[in-house]
Amino acid sequence: MSRPLPLPVEPAAASTWPAPFLLYLGNAHDDLAGKTARGLAFWRPELCVGQFRDRDCKTTLGITDLDFAQARAAGANTMVVGVANAGGRMDERTIEHVVAALDAGMNVASGLHQRLDSQPRIVEAARRNGRSLFDARNPPPTPVGNGLPRAGRRLLTVGTDCSTGKMYTTLALEKEMRARGMAADFRATGQTGIFIAGHGIPIDAVVADFISGGIEWLSPARDDDGWDLIEGQGSLFHPSYAGVSIGLLHGAQPDALVLCHEPGRAHMRGLPHYAVPSLQATLEANLAAAHLTNAEARFVGIALNTARMSEQDAERACRSAEDQLGLPAQDPVRHGVSRIVDHVIACFPN
Amino acid sequence: MSRPLPLPVEPAAASTWPAPFLLYLGNAHDDLAGKTARGLAFWRPELCVGQFRDRDCKTTLGITDLDFAQARAAGANTMVVGVANAGGRMDERTIEHVVAALDAGMNVASGLHQRLDSQPRIVEAARRNGRSLFDARNPPPTPVGNGLPRAGRRLLTVGTDCSTGKMYTTLALEKEMRARGMAADFRATGQTGIFIAGHGIPIDAVVADFISGGIEWLSPARDDDGWDLIEGQGSLFHPSYAGVSIGLLHGAQPDALVLCHEPGRAHMRGLPHYAVPSLQATLEANLAAAHLTNAEARFVGIALNTARMSEQDAERACRSAEDQLGLPAQDPVRHGVSRIVDHVIACFPN
Repeated sequence: MSRPLPLPVEPAAASTWPAPFLLYLGNAHDDLAGKTARGLAFWRPELCVGQFRDRDCKTTLGITDLDFAQARAAGANTMVVGVANAGGRMDERTIEHVVAALDAGMNVASGLHQRLDSQPRIVEAARRNGRSLFDARNPPPTPVGNGLPRAGRRLLTVGTDCSTGKMYTTLALEKEMRARGMAADFRATGQTGIFIAGHGIPIDAVVADFISGGIEWLSPARDDDGWDLIEGQGSLFHPSYAGVSIGLLHGAQPDALVLCHEPGRAHMRGLPHYAVPSLQATLEANLAAAHLTNAEARFVGIALNTARMSEQDAERACRSAEDQLGLPAQDPVRHGVSRIVDHVIACFPN
Repeated sequence: MSRPLPLPVEPAAASTWPAPFLLYLGNAHDDLAGKTARGLAFWRPELCVGQFRDRDCKTTLGITDLDFAQARAAGANTMVVGVANAGGRMDERTIEHVVAALDAGMNVASGLHQRLDSQPRIVEAARRNGRSLFDARNPPPTPVGNGLPRAGRRLLTVGTDCSTGKMYTTLALEKEMRARGMAADFRATGQTGIFIAGHGIPIDAVVADFISGGIEWLSPARDDDGWDLIEGQGSLFHPSYAGVSIGLLHGAQPDALVLCHEPGRAHMRGLPHYAVPSLQATLEANLAAAHLTNAEARFVGIALNTARMSEQDAERACRSAEDQLGLPAQDPVRHGVSRIVDHVIACFPN
């Protein structure tokens, strides 16, 4: 295993992609393709002046359509390429649009795999206009994890699978805690979360030896009695990504864990031959791993994604999970997370 | 989590660093610094024509000292920079020597963090002489893991900690199995192993999302009744590196596991505040994780590193481990691994 050599990349300073934003949807073919833009528009509407949609775009964020000059005139400082094409690649049309946005005077930030600075025409346009490029999937240099106990309280969302609502749940917890006057900060680990938070680490893009260290860097010691609310990724039961999930768990040293799950999912995401684990098995595996770096780690709630269920079935699913694990279970979208936050406060009195 | 985009790096073809080798020790200040060169000299002596030591070198491999011209004249095709400096960096002196080796007509391969091709003088010398550069820590592009069952038998070494003898044990198993006429191939996951095997993947250097996929790539399906013997890394109980270890375990889908341990170690490597887990706890955690991708995974033996113990204490440690877990326990250096291989054959009859 390697020693704490910093990665040979430049840190991305938050100041290189200042709000407010124009959200670029391009020719997004469905709602899922515009996931990053949608997350930003939902959680940070005050930072979004409008959206840019190309002629074949099949989705909308329900905000003002603007071209590049209009967006700049409306105050947009950065265009966020918040659209996932197949393979995360930039097609010719996207490159043209990025160049046009730079020429209109905006910076450009992207969550694509393919880096903006891998395109000579984009680099040249940024230079010509004195604008910045920001790739959210470009991890900052971080040390190797050391597992040393650190001050502060941390909550981590974990899941039975990928895409069970971990980011949404974490942001809902931040909102609810802040509404109650608690100090609480969302800590982003994926590109959408990074755009929403304004900083973070794309933890699935760091070099394998640096996963836990990246999370230690993301959520350093704090002494204000506040909470770091860390966005989880993947699942200990996902054969493709469990390495990311366990490194994240070890680095987070969470005091509190929230279990995210979509009832009724047929199989693990992308893997029809893998069944979704039970809530109980997921809880046990995460506790066992979490106790390596925080012997006091405990679950404080269950967040169910019941979007595809009737109101009645959703209620039933929550009651069933609650009875089974003895923890408050809510759908953050339908019900909010107030009962989970109540339980956090009960478990961790000041 | 990201989708199967190949990494933006070139695959390192095995043919770019042909044997035989000159082993470069430079000014290695102790035996540990020359670990990679030592591994190569021990396991592949027939491929090593000699060593190059600078005036302040404090270690030797016990093979012929040669300068660059002598090495080339003796048939060396590649100089292997098998020395770990602090931080894995190349100092000025090393750069000069690499250039001199290229000028003498050898290719150069390195296991350092800092890439050979990051040094303009080295790149220029390689071009000038029509020679190749190979960085063992530069992972090949691989897909994301899919967890699909694949044909063939695989054995993985796992450990209570880093540096417990996993590579040595895996190579000893290859040697013993081949001596019995079994088809068995060492699969390397670290830079020393890669130099020994001639190919492999530096699994701690891949992007986090690709850990299990990298191991699936390393040990594809085979139908000759032979074994892939996969070199493990780290430990599920190491807070810095468990992500690598679990991804490796999931990707390997091992039928057989060998537990590597150094009795008497005071604490986890580099982490004085972390105790070494028990053999039983390590066995259970690895089995639980392994069963996700291979429900039949089982332990077949224990390899103890008793280098710092007396003969009597070593014997006692092996008997104790054996009684505790009901598996053959041997020190591969003192005792070989014949009883472990006997047990593999008993557990997996043809």
